[in-house]
Amino acid sequence: MASEFKMTHRVEFADTDMAGLVHFANYLRYMEVAEHAFLRTLGLSIAMEQKHGVGWPRVHASCDYVAPLRFEDEVEIHLKVREKKGKALTYDFLFRRVKPEPVLEVARGRITTVCVSRDGSGQMKAVPIPDAVARKIEVAP
Amino acid sequence: MASEFKMTHRVEFADTDMAGLVHFANYLRYMEVAEHAFLRTLGLSIAMEQKHGVGWPRVHASCDYVAPLRFEDEVEIHLKVREKKGKALTYDFLFRRVKPEPVLEVARGRITTVCVSRDGSGQMKAVPIPDAVARKIEVAP
Amino acid sequence: MASEFKMTHRVEFADTDMAGLVHFANYLRYMEVAEHAFLRTLGLSIAMEQKHGVGWPRVHASCDYVAPLRFEDEVEIHLKVREKKGKALTYDFLFRRVKPEPVLEVARGRITTVCVSRDGSGQMKAVPIPDAVARKIEVAP
Amino acid sequence: MASEFKMTHRVEFADTDMAGLVHFANYLRYMEVAEHAFLRTLGLSIAMEQKHGVGWPRVHASCDYVAPLRFEDEVEIHLKVREKKGKALTYDFLFRRVKPEPVLEVARGRITTVCVSRDGSGQMKAVPIPDAVARKIEVAP
Repeated sequence: MASEFKMTHRVEFADTDMAGLVHFANYLRYMEVAEHAFLRTLGLSIAMEQKHGVGWPRVHASCDYVAPLRFEDEVEIHLKVREKKGKALTYDFLFRRVKPEPVLEVARGRITTVCVSRDGSGQMKAVPIPDAVARKIEVAP
Repeated sequence: MASEFKMTHRVEFADTDMAGLVHFANYLRYMEVAEHAFLRTLGLSIAMEQKHGVGWPRVHASCDYVAPLRFEDEVEIHLKVREKKGKALTYDFLFRRVKPEPVLEVARGRITTVCVSRDGSGQMKAVPIPDAVARKIEVAP
Repeated sequence: MASEFKMTHRVEFADTDMAGLVHFANYLRYMEVAEHAFLRTLGLSIAMEQKHGVGWPRVHASCDYVAPLRFEDEVEIHLKVREKKGKALTYDFLFRRVKPEPVLEVARGRITTVCVSRDGSGQMKAVPIPDAVARKIEVAP
Repeated sequence: MASEFKMTHRVEFADTDMAGLVHFANYLRYMEVAEHAFLRTLGLSIAMEQKHGVGWPRVHASCDYVAPLRFEDEVEIHLKVREKKGKALTYDFLFRRVKPEPVLEVARGRITTVCVSRDGSGQMKAVPIPDAVARKIEVAP
């Protein structure tokens, strides 16, 4: 059972915009990168459709931006499982800058993702999280 | 004085991901496209740094996803000014699908953006919204 | 039978990078947007997998960058069909800036895309372009 | 003096498109990530504008796509310095898939980037590569 995960990410040039900062939409991509890396540590993949017949569309994402990130900054992304429901997971994310100088709080984010299966026509329906997945993930203390 | 704006956007191929849906981070880009088009209708540009000496980093962004968007869907983005403070603006966004079949609520989003100036070292500081900007924008009823 | 297509595109904020210019990878996205709009004028969609059983991965893309593009520039993208082979199409693209001041040649690009079908395991194999598609497209003079 | 560089990159979910493959424009981003990592190994950064007064816009980019890349694939990017001229550098890139199964040639790419300085109005002009940069980079055998 795992409930949190940390990784370090370097800001790439293409992630910046003309203001010289990481574009605000890219923080959601960074959160997703951490989420998928967390799942890999559990032997899981967000691409479970072939193995478990389920997908994970998002129903909520948010971010509060406290300090800017710039090209080549190294940022630590700290994921915590906030909530585990029958058909949905909510993750909290804390961004810290590690380099060049530490910044304790760069941003805070949240993603809620729901477990779905698709019928023949591609329509998605929320379904219980497969047990093989659910038993590996627990809410952070 | 303007308080709302509507535009239509077509989902491009590169906006989709392997789940066949618009990637969730791209909704923030779509909101921004609508925000900038709204400002252009007022004769303004988010790129005010040369003209007014200010930039507009985001302090908050969020999105609730209700129904999926797919390639070539046409989506109406409806922006409303939710809050106008001395140094910050908050916009609400409602996404509706127009084509192929209408979907009344695809997503709802919010962005709070703060007016800043930069000192010589690039440090940003919140400053009052320039009057030439503030007098053109009002809170939606 | 159609052999060329023009469209106008406005540079969005998220397309820029910290150098203040459109990031060079985004020109490929712009070419693709023009290609898909061209196909729509013919009643076609790049997403032909459901209707015609084929997909269109790229085998070549290139771009020569002559003058920069910046935020809110309006750029005309001129697509010409350069080559039509049994299983592949090659498009040439000319980028012109329309606003703020005209620039006759901003960039030139090329995409070669191949018609494929997938077998049960997802393996792709080049196949002849479906006649319903091929008969609508011809090489530009 | 360095003339080549290798790195491994994992394909992220947001890099894929609805065809289930890495979107073709993202290969240019991957090449750039390798280029910047190469420069960092030399104590350099593409963001030289503050330190050396120069920037590095691209004048050419191309890619030949041989085999697809998918989510969570690990790809080795092998950069070689192809040409070093007074004001420009050309890099060649070879993409190999490392996981899940090796693929010896996934794609081949090329970027030519030119050294520029900007005048007061932001106009760019090609200038000689600063000696502190040029003396660290040599053409691969």
